[in-house]
Amino acid sequence: MSSDKICVAFMLAFVTGGSALAGEGMWTPDNLPKAQLRADYGFTPDAKWIERAQKSALRLAGGCSGSFVSPKGLVLTNHHCVNSCVQQLSTAEKDFIKSGFLAKEEKDEVKCPEIELNRLDQITNVTERVKQATQGKSGEDYSKAEKAVKSDIEKECVGADSEHTRCDVVNLYHGGVYDVYKYHRYQDVRLVFAPELETAFFGGDPDNFNFPRYDLDMGVLRAYENGKPAKVTDYFPFSKNGADTGEMTVILGNPGGTDRQLTMAELASTRDRDLIPVLLLLAERRGLLEQFRSESPERWRIAQNDLFGVENSYKALRGRLEALQDPTVFDRKRQQEAELRGFVNADPARKAKYGAAWDEIAKALVVYGTIETRYKAIEGGRGFGSRYYDYARMIVRGAAERDKPNAERLREFSDSRLPSITQRLFSTAPVYADYEEVKLAWSLTKLREWLGSDDALVKQVLGKESPEALAKRLIAGTKLGDPAVRKALWEGGADALAKSDDPFIALVRDVDPQARALRTRYENEVESVIDKNSELIAAARFEKYGTSVYPDATFTQRFSFGKVEGWTEKGVAVSPFTDIGGAFEHATGAYPFALPPAWLAAKNSLNLKQRLNFVTTNDIIGGNSGSPVINRKAEIVGLVFDGNIHSLGGDYWYDASLNRAVSVHSGAILEALRKVYHAQALANELESARRH
Amino acid sequence: MSSDKICVAFMLAFVTGGSALAGEGMWTPDNLPKAQLRADYGFTPDAKWIERAQKSALRLAGGCSGSFVSPKGLVLTNHHCVNSCVQQLSTAEKDFIKSGFLAKEEKDEVKCPEIELNRLDQITNVTERVKQATQGKSGEDYSKAEKAVKSDIEKECVGADSEHTRCDVVNLYHGGVYDVYKYHRYQDVRLVFAPELETAFFGGDPDNFNFPRYDLDMGVLRAYENGKPAKVTDYFPFSKNGADTGEMTVILGNPGGTDRQLTMAELASTRDRDLIPVLLLLAERRGLLEQFRSESPERWRIAQNDLFGVENSYKALRGRLEALQDPTVFDRKRQQEAELRGFVNADPARKAKYGAAWDEIAKALVVYGTIETRYKAIEGGRGFGSRYYDYARMIVRGAAERDKPNAERLREFSDSRLPSITQRLFSTAPVYADYEEVKLAWSLTKLREWLGSDDALVKQVLGKESPEALAKRLIAGTKLGDPAVRKALWEGGADALAKSDDPFIALVRDVDPQARALRTRYENEVESVIDKNSELIAAARFEKYGTSVYPDATFTQRFSFGKVEGWTEKGVAVSPFTDIGGAFEHATGAYPFALPPAWLAAKNSLNLKQRLNFVTTNDIIGGNSGSPVINRKAEIVGLVFDGNIHSLGGDYWYDASLNRAVSVHSGAILEALRKVYHAQALANELESARRH
Repeated sequence: MSSDKICVAFMLAFVTGGSALAGEGMWTPDNLPKAQLRADYGFTPDAKWIERAQKSALRLAGGCSGSFVSPKGLVLTNHHCVNSCVQQLSTAEKDFIKSGFLAKEEKDEVKCPEIELNRLDQITNVTERVKQATQGKSGEDYSKAEKAVKSDIEKECVGADSEHTRCDVVNLYHGGVYDVYKYHRYQDVRLVFAPELETAFFGGDPDNFNFPRYDLDMGVLRAYENGKPAKVTDYFPFSKNGADTGEMTVILGNPGGTDRQLTMAELASTRDRDLIPVLLLLAERRGLLEQFRSESPERWRIAQNDLFGVENSYKALRGRLEALQDPTVFDRKRQQEAELRGFVNADPARKAKYGAAWDEIAKALVVYGTIETRYKAIEGGRGFGSRYYDYARMIVRGAAERDKPNAERLREFSDSRLPSITQRLFSTAPVYADYEEVKLAWSLTKLREWLGSDDALVKQVLGKESPEALAKRLIAGTKLGDPAVRKALWEGGADALAKSDDPFIALVRDVDPQARALRTRYENEVESVIDKNSELIAAARFEKYGTSVYPDATFTQRFSFGKVEGWTEKGVAVSPFTDIGGAFEHATGAYPFALPPAWLAAKNSLNLKQRLNFVTTNDIIGGNSGSPVINRKAEIVGLVFDGNIHSLGGDYWYDASLNRAVSVHSGAILEALRKVYHAQALANELESARRH
Repeated sequence: MSSDKICVAFMLAFVTGGSALAGEGMWTPDNLPKAQLRADYGFTPDAKWIERAQKSALRLAGGCSGSFVSPKGLVLTNHHCVNSCVQQLSTAEKDFIKSGFLAKEEKDEVKCPEIELNRLDQITNVTERVKQATQGKSGEDYSKAEKAVKSDIEKECVGADSEHTRCDVVNLYHGGVYDVYKYHRYQDVRLVFAPELETAFFGGDPDNFNFPRYDLDMGVLRAYENGKPAKVTDYFPFSKNGADTGEMTVILGNPGGTDRQLTMAELASTRDRDLIPVLLLLAERRGLLEQFRSESPERWRIAQNDLFGVENSYKALRGRLEALQDPTVFDRKRQQEAELRGFVNADPARKAKYGAAWDEIAKALVVYGTIETRYKAIEGGRGFGSRYYDYARMIVRGAAERDKPNAERLREFSDSRLPSITQRLFSTAPVYADYEEVKLAWSLTKLREWLGSDDALVKQVLGKESPEALAKRLIAGTKLGDPAVRKALWEGGADALAKSDDPFIALVRDVDPQARALRTRYENEVESVIDKNSELIAAARFEKYGTSVYPDATFTQRFSFGKVEGWTEKGVAVSPFTDIGGAFEHATGAYPFALPPAWLAAKNSLNLKQRLNFVTTNDIIGGNSGSPVINRKAEIVGLVFDGNIHSLGGDYWYDASLNRAVSVHSGAILEALRKVYHAQALANELESARRH
């Protein structure tokens, strides 16, 4: 995932309940560490400040963050968060990835087929309702009850207007708290500006997760409603000066996930069953895409965004794996778990309530080990890697699920979530048949590798064909590349499906019963057991450490507080800032270290001393990409796009001395817009946005 | 490596010194478990039987095993051991990989450019001499002294005739015993027969390491001397009937390496620092080669052998990794180490002698951790993956090393080893420039990834070029694809080099000082410390367990004793035999499950009940590929080509109930030669070979 950036937190300080170090913590809007903010920064945000910030910040439903930066719905995020849109709007003739994109006027702004923005408007605690629904239940009963209550709560929260309202039940503290988050949903989102990939991702994969950096990793979107730019009252004004060394910085975003509260059994399973297989899969996919991309400029254009995602995830997950291979870290976590279990077992009542939870989770993970490969290959879709297959499955499952009561559906087909499905399904993004054929053929060979050539499902899928021949035949025969065909099948429901002879629809029909069976087994025997017992551990943790702590990240809005500060790398001080001049000094002219023509042409007019990128101590992780960096006046001083190399693996703890968030400087954004891209209107809109 | 097959041994029985289970053990010719053979099989081989077997068996220096099967120097081994030769003899017009190869007469037998055969003639114990040379030394002194004494011993052993004699000092029991093995060397080795890849490797990677199997994984070579077929007195006659269920089978071969005696620190380092990085590298390379291969039939032909090697190693090492991730195995090994260390520490004298060895090794591995990535990338050559670079380095280093006294050279350039270098360097095997360009460009991106784009060496190598541009330029400018040019540079030595403007020679000149520095550091601070302390642990082990055990595999000749026996797979009995009919039943017609035309045409004439593949309980591992399976009359009953899936990971222990060696049945070899390939002369030569 292009948003799979990692951050780090100091587990010890957290788990022992000690107050977090400066920088540590991903705080929910309704539980900011106010005493600590006063102590660390003399900062005392009032309710209005917090609400404004909360509603100015945005989530990109696909896996990024962003923010409103003008009253006319202008949105600032990363290039790597809009890269897929830029690619989808490009053609062999006009490649915006290479040339960049600028809408000179409103009428030139083009809709992104698959981007959805969420603005968090309301948080309601529903802990009691969820816990009562699952009270005393286990296994399948627990799983069904949990699904049902969540779907009910979300549906009630959405009410009539599911087009503009999205509600998600959020599980915090691994079941310690359940909230329902009510979002305003924007699905008409248009591309306003994107620089050339060479500028946005200067240094490419080699410099990814590194600093010093020289990237203009920015993208500008605009939210529309009823065909007009959305009028918004909450947005962040722009600070041209940015923030100085030592100045407090607040980052609001949607960190995707952290693993700071997992049990030892879960950590070992993560390391051996999840990270290693997915890294091996990513590595092979990377090699495939590298060679595919080298075959022609058009193939380069088609594959580059996927390859970026693969390389980005690879590097991030590699760092996590190395963290989990560090015996000192593992031993420390073992001690922490022993400490909590000791606390539980010391009291008979607590022991009776919580004592078995860790072993129950471990047992569920043993079950997981027996189905994990099949589950990921079939239900996870790893063995059928093609957009056509994904579309066919949405259609086939959608027809079946929509006939069921809301509470009994697969979660992703509940009423409150259907708009996300249809946005993807009806997307006008181009599908490249020859590329899909390569990916599908390859993933079918993986399916055979993982399940074995004598496996019944493998025989059923491949028959007497090779993966290559099957992929070719399916793709030659499908019409699902056409959004109109997909829409007709979706809206036609079961009847339309019955008449369809599309080969992907037929394939999904063959595979889906086994896929669903695996999912049911996973939900009933693994997920529900882990959820139930994680809730118990969370309750025990509250009893021991209280609630003045932050929950693991859940791709919901979090506030992170830090400051502009470099670090010491092998005895050498790393300055927190780079400048535009540094980009020219590091340009070799060869990809990925080449600056595009517009920059070379503008060199003389540019202020080479203008700060370009900078680092702060804020605690972020994947999903924070595109987050605004604001100062205490709630002005934009930067745009998060990465973490430094030390932040890799930091799913598990935070090291204030080394871990840094990497951002684009607000001044560099204005400098580039005006002098390189001559986007005066856009720059003016940013600079004129003021607090009203 | 195409020979990277794995076998398994029951560590407990071994380490606790208990007698090995039936099947377990890789025994040196001079230390067979005679009492056990009598007890288990009523088998009492005399000195003559053993010597004959020893001299009839062969080692393929590149990493396989084989055996003489006629007095005229005919050699039986695996197709995957001669695959590289078959490919090197093929062209776009005539692809012997696809069509197979048969020399109807002697004159049609074609020399393999890079195959060397070794016949083990003599074993001499030199333990005292080696240990005295390193007595009381450590670090660089130890490393130099060890290198010097080994080179001296080998040179004395070889004497005048380095062309036909090869001597290797062999380190057994991790330094418990040093022997010098004297081999008769054959470098004029010609291809006689190879079936189509589709037959040899039916089922391909999906079925690799699996059983039931239906492979004719055989290749036939002939050793020549003075331009004539070599006359040999020791060879194995052929048994048409093969061996029956329960019958004892002896496998003679050269298992490449096992890790049954490593310390816990070494096992952890193997898992985290060696296996995982190499698996990730193999996975990415695999994806690259899969896509490269798909681009044209010619590219398929060029890349297939490399891809086979990559996939084979990947599957084998994946199995090893999973074994090392099994906590029960790791805990068991921890107990075993604790047991031995307890024995050592219980006695003050022993403690003083051996007590520190484990921690010293652990410390050396910490040093290794700090240089490992650079060492593998630069000295290991992973960052410069191209035949041209390998050639250039042989030439540049050869010129420097040959000017030094034998004892002071890099080991691979000692007098006794130069013939192996020159065989590779002067090889007439074709070099495909566009393929080399893809591999080199890719590995240069890895170099940059591992060392970082700001690394001095990376900047020195890449300058302002991209890896792709640099690879293109280097390969466009080199003449090293021509063996005559390589020969001239080698023979011209320093003077010729000084005049050379070949870009790869220049690149190696730039990189080699740093490569050599890394190697020196590795040898002095890691290898020598591990060798020295492993010797101490080996001595302690001898004190506790005695010497009635077998040493870890070292790619030297070993005898393994077992029997024909199936196993039970998830409650279902697996028969030890498959037959030719089964191959036709499993043929889908789609690669890799397609039988070639010759087989389809011969179907009616074939005895479909003829046994094709079979499994035995013998203890084998990578390097055993091509090993003869003989009965107590020393007749060939089969040809080892694989281990079953349970044997994966068995670097570390042996499970007699599950671990099986997989072989081609001798009867199937004759049946196929006569009825499918109409190779009557060859079949006659095999069947007429009798004990004289």
